[in-house]
Amino acid sequence: MTVEEIVLAMAKQARQAAPAVAGCSTAKKNDALKAIADNIVEQAPYIRSQNALDLEAARKNGLSDAMIDRLTVGDKTITAMAEGLMDVAGLQDPVGSADGTWVRPNGLEVSRVRIPLGVIGIVYESRPNVTIDAAGLCLKSGNAVILRGGSEAIHSNLALAKSISHGLAKAAMPENAVQVVPVTDRVAINVLLAREEEIDLIIPRGGEGLIRFVVENSKIPVLKHYKGVCHVFVDRTADMKTAEDICFNAKVQRPGVCNAMETLLVHKDAAPVFLPEMGARFEGAGVAIRGCEQTRRILPAASRATEEDWYEEYLDLILSVRVVENIDEAMAHIARYGSQHTEAIVTSDYGNAERFLKGVDSSVVLVNASTRFNDGGQLGLGAEMGISTSKLHAFGPMGLKELTTTKFVVRGSGQVRT
Amino acid sequence: MTVEEIVLAMAKQARQAAPAVAGCSTAKKNDALKAIADNIVEQAPYIRSQNALDLEAARKNGLSDAMIDRLTVGDKTITAMAEGLMDVAGLQDPVGSADGTWVRPNGLEVSRVRIPLGVIGIVYESRPNVTIDAAGLCLKSGNAVILRGGSEAIHSNLALAKSISHGLAKAAMPENAVQVVPVTDRVAINVLLAREEEIDLIIPRGGEGLIRFVVENSKIPVLKHYKGVCHVFVDRTADMKTAEDICFNAKVQRPGVCNAMETLLVHKDAAPVFLPEMGARFEGAGVAIRGCEQTRRILPAASRATEEDWYEEYLDLILSVRVVENIDEAMAHIARYGSQHTEAIVTSDYGNAERFLKGVDSSVVLVNASTRFNDGGQLGLGAEMGISTSKLHAFGPMGLKELTTTKFVVRGSGQVRT
Repeated sequence: MTVEEIVLAMAKQARQAAPAVAGCSTAKKNDALKAIADNIVEQAPYIRSQNALDLEAARKNGLSDAMIDRLTVGDKTITAMAEGLMDVAGLQDPVGSADGTWVRPNGLEVSRVRIPLGVIGIVYESRPNVTIDAAGLCLKSGNAVILRGGSEAIHSNLALAKSISHGLAKAAMPENAVQVVPVTDRVAINVLLAREEEIDLIIPRGGEGLIRFVVENSKIPVLKHYKGVCHVFVDRTADMKTAEDICFNAKVQRPGVCNAMETLLVHKDAAPVFLPEMGARFEGAGVAIRGCEQTRRILPAASRATEEDWYEEYLDLILSVRVVENIDEAMAHIARYGSQHTEAIVTSDYGNAERFLKGVDSSVVLVNASTRFNDGGQLGLGAEMGISTSKLHAFGPMGLKELTTTKFVVRGSGQVRT
Repeated sequence: MTVEEIVLAMAKQARQAAPAVAGCSTAKKNDALKAIADNIVEQAPYIRSQNALDLEAARKNGLSDAMIDRLTVGDKTITAMAEGLMDVAGLQDPVGSADGTWVRPNGLEVSRVRIPLGVIGIVYESRPNVTIDAAGLCLKSGNAVILRGGSEAIHSNLALAKSISHGLAKAAMPENAVQVVPVTDRVAINVLLAREEEIDLIIPRGGEGLIRFVVENSKIPVLKHYKGVCHVFVDRTADMKTAEDICFNAKVQRPGVCNAMETLLVHKDAAPVFLPEMGARFEGAGVAIRGCEQTRRILPAASRATEEDWYEEYLDLILSVRVVENIDEAMAHIARYGSQHTEAIVTSDYGNAERFLKGVDSSVVLVNASTRFNDGGQLGLGAEMGISTSKLHAFGPMGLKELTTTKFVVRGSGQVRT
């Protein structure tokens, strides 16, 4: 079979399986999740042996340490995947609940009932745990899913696919509810992205390059964010200790993720007090600062920020810092350079807090809290499939609910329209 | 200026106006809606004189009576447009309300707050009233809007645009909150559909040809339905009088609209009793029936339905009729030939009613009620911007809420992530 034939067959199988997956009871879906979790733990030696093949190839191909780290399935990864599935099994099933039910004057009873989207395609890179995490969320939300991971993780992903198949079979769920694309040629992605007849939604997970490739080639709706150029604005009235802790957490706790702070904006009246202490703390953590002129007058060790720096997602211990006149200038900076991902204000001023919350057009806007909270788990969605910065369908972290839609169910007693 | 420059400038002006429109109070938006309504009534003679120019051109160009009917702005149209705006002014403003607020264990208060989408582009055909209806809904939901109507209605649309500008000015709303594209070249649509930087959503209104053109050429997400091949299934246990009234209403009350029944499916045990009476009633209303073999044995006057008939949206007094073995065959027929728009079952059987509601994958599914109720107003959304049969963002009729999205607003007191 050609690549095209293989992927097309998978798409058709997923479409065919979708109604049966959508119709599975919560108990059955949870049984499958638990059976997959058990099998991953049981088969850990096999999964790790397959992962070793990927790691060997990665070393041979000279992949970076960071990439090899992401690719590695250690004991911790195995445990985390199994626990993640159990967590998803414990979440409330969104399917079948009504977003609202009301009665019309003519007696029609109208409900907006949550239903699965149908078939979801996930296109991702080197982390094999995405195979399990994404499969779990799609299953629980009643969707069939096609998983297309990176070629560098193919042995690991196919090993995990065996555990998934085992779990589906044990719970008597449709075998094509979850399918892992075995073809590593990149053209397989193009074939997948063209199957609008069978696939309802594409979610890419990975670097900006992969995401742009998916968006440019997809005929299917895509939920994604390109990057997270997240800002913290330290207002004139900010409590200095709070501001310091939040900014340190936002930049340093995990700099390589999309909700880490990339640009710090400081009110000009706060800067002389705040920046010296904050700068010292950042220096201690190895953060390189690129500042505007005013910043560099206070922190002479900072290098000069260029226009490009304000657009940059460093994903590293680098931070651009700008001193601003007031909240208006801070919000204008965010509107111009931001990515509509996550922005926070640190302030004691009620009016400014409310202005920032209303006026900043980002998926998550926070007052006196770290940008690192833009995460489905942290915000209480129970789990996360990714973060969307497009406004259609989902804006912000996507949990189980965002993998569903609603249809109108109408119960009548003979009503006709007059 | 070239067409491209004109449309690009409008897109940029809309984007620029969007935050101010989003920030307008409900009172201000309602003031604008009322001022526009008043001005339409005041300026009725002018609007009708401009409409006369379009009608004259339409007659000269040999447009069909049906198209001229759609194009005509009579006294009733004027009144309906003004009343429609007043109705929208009376609806609850979705912007700013929270879909939910909860507190995390660490004290973070999380809300999903409704916000406007931003900039909406409407591409439509000959009905000038869409200019007013769409502008009203977009304004009330806090969006800036660019309206691109048909060239055949350009004088009418520009006349209505003057009333809109007047109303916006009177309420001190941004003048670019609503813009009507003055260029009638079709390339203006292409330019609009490429402006993904400025426009968040495109909604096409019109025939299948226009909609396919928009979908194929748009880089911006599109909410639409191609057609409504709506089914009614008359089950074995249906009350015959109820079934007759529903089927008659679904087909005859307004055959030219998307929620009219196009195919009638009848349980084989009900057919011998139901079809003769129903057939006579349809015949009396001038409905031409295209039937399967079994139908034609009962209704010899029916012509033979071809395979193509089952896919057909007649939008006319034509109906395809098929006798089926049972509910499974009915649901399989709908899954194969349907358009995921609207389907109804007429039954007295509880189990079949529930099976149909759960198993039929359409935006509106009804028991014992006419398909004609798939309409935002009829279902209680207050108004309607169109109907979506794609599952992302909106599935079914789109009201004010569907023209908004939610962002996460997080109120903290110094929380950092551990």
